[in-house]
Amino acid sequence: MEFSDRLHRLVSQRGTPLCVGFDPHINLLPPALVRRHLDKTGHPLHGHIAAVTEFLIRILDRIAGRIPIVKPQWAFFEQFGPEGMVALQSICSEARDRGLLVIADAKRGDIGSTAAAYANAFFASADPAEDAYSPPFLADAVTVNPYLGWDAVSPFLAKNIQHGVFVLVRTSNPSGDDFQNLSVDGDRVQDRVADAVREWGAGRIGECGWSSVGAVVGATYPEEAERLRDRMPLTPFLIPGFGAQGGSADSAVKALNRDGSGGNVNSSRDILFAYRKAPYTRQFGEDGFDRAAEAACLDAIHRLGEALHRK
Amino acid sequence: MEFSDRLHRLVSQRGTPLCVGFDPHINLLPPALVRRHLDKTGHPLHGHIAAVTEFLIRILDRIAGRIPIVKPQWAFFEQFGPEGMVALQSICSEARDRGLLVIADAKRGDIGSTAAAYANAFFASADPAEDAYSPPFLADAVTVNPYLGWDAVSPFLAKNIQHGVFVLVRTSNPSGDDFQNLSVDGDRVQDRVADAVREWGAGRIGECGWSSVGAVVGATYPEEAERLRDRMPLTPFLIPGFGAQGGSADSAVKALNRDGSGGNVNSSRDILFAYRKAPYTRQFGEDGFDRAAEAACLDAIHRLGEALHRK
Repeated sequence: MEFSDRLHRLVSQRGTPLCVGFDPHINLLPPALVRRHLDKTGHPLHGHIAAVTEFLIRILDRIAGRIPIVKPQWAFFEQFGPEGMVALQSICSEARDRGLLVIADAKRGDIGSTAAAYANAFFASADPAEDAYSPPFLADAVTVNPYLGWDAVSPFLAKNIQHGVFVLVRTSNPSGDDFQNLSVDGDRVQDRVADAVREWGAGRIGECGWSSVGAVVGATYPEEAERLRDRMPLTPFLIPGFGAQGGSADSAVKALNRDGSGGNVNSSRDILFAYRKAPYTRQFGEDGFDRAAEAACLDAIHRLGEALHRK
Repeated sequence: MEFSDRLHRLVSQRGTPLCVGFDPHINLLPPALVRRHLDKTGHPLHGHIAAVTEFLIRILDRIAGRIPIVKPQWAFFEQFGPEGMVALQSICSEARDRGLLVIADAKRGDIGSTAAAYANAFFASADPAEDAYSPPFLADAVTVNPYLGWDAVSPFLAKNIQHGVFVLVRTSNPSGDDFQNLSVDGDRVQDRVADAVREWGAGRIGECGWSSVGAVVGATYPEEAERLRDRMPLTPFLIPGFGAQGGSADSAVKALNRDGSGGNVNSSRDILFAYRKAPYTRQFGEDGFDRAAEAACLDAIHRLGEALHRK
């Protein structure tokens, strides 16, 4: 089944397009949790990895039934080295065991033969006999950087229709303008990337009507989201920047259909680290970080639902 | 000491700008070597990792004294999962122990807070007290994708002047044109990226006169290399595409000074897998792959040297 159909079905079942990003900044974790694991392991690296793992698994236990998809950010595990990558494997497989889809936010992008090796890391082949071993970081989709063009994307699409990609089109960071906004004959670079994403995904439209080749479109630029929607009418959007990066719920759902289809809205820090902020701090305390995350998740689902109703 | 000075000194000492890329395609390794490790481990994944490790270490033993720098490609290890990343750590540290500099060809590119986590994975801080543990994948430089702009690059530059970056400007793959060649007011996207790379590197010029912010400029487009050199007069180039990807020695050194300074020319497959091609197959056989690689390395050094003399 096409990745887009799997995602569409799960979004319908859970009744929300919310995606929770796993960006476990060690300095934002509950200090007591980190201290406990540092004391237990007597080793900074192992203590940090154990703290991140407990933190995310406890949050997963609370939120897994409420959302369709999670997006672990590779960098936060890669910085811990191979042992961090083992923890990442277990986070991804725990998420999948709980019925969630997983987007590997790895932003890979390389020449063809190298992109094929990256695809092996994340995706299984349609015929298992083609894989010498199972993909170590099995994910349902991966984020891909378009700077190297089609070569960087095609190996991911060649593996298996069950897997999809989200190509960076418009990112929500302050310097996203540097090159994405350059003028190209009346268009912008991001528009040309959008056109390519539409073409790349044309052969991968699911029964739900959406493509398995998605686009990352930052929520901090709502007018752009509408313009990019016009250029990519069948492309699911992955919309970062809701919450901590400054996007409102109304901005975030700008490019979505009223039924919540057409994209996923990501929130990372506002949910993971809700325990640090009012009203959750007083309500749950530091050790109730998982219940704070659950409450913030329910609040985000609610705000997105209201914004969709207002459309 | 600035990364650029460390690199410049080593290029002078070794008398060549050649960089050898470690892209260990498992299907191109000597079949008997792979079979031996598969038999020994009785496990496809472990067998492949052991074969890649022996293959690269034996080649390192032959070539380390002859070249200044190597460039392991992350994807070929990531596809093996955490155990592959352990092998990558050992390859990198063996290369450094033999006096080589290491470019992590990881093509990372993300928003600021995430790029900072990636920087922790690769670079040590100037003050070791700032690092809770040593960087798991310590490298001298890393390749960075510019699509997210300055945010994706700056955290790598903030760590320590000993470390440098090579920003993708013009890549040598067939679809490199897709976006890098779009017209922007008479320029191309790659030109604007080049201008940014020059600016980003202006504060990081070493005593050698070159910046520690380098640029990846594909050797398959020699006219472009000259134009980009004009836009980035103090930027060291990392020039892939020499050999297997079709670039000649004269093209490869187009943007270098006659003394070989100003960039490194990378060759991967032509050297690693020389044992598969005439005249090396007959001369060294399959098991002499390391001596074949050494001979191909010497040949590449010679051809680059001649091309520099012809300038």
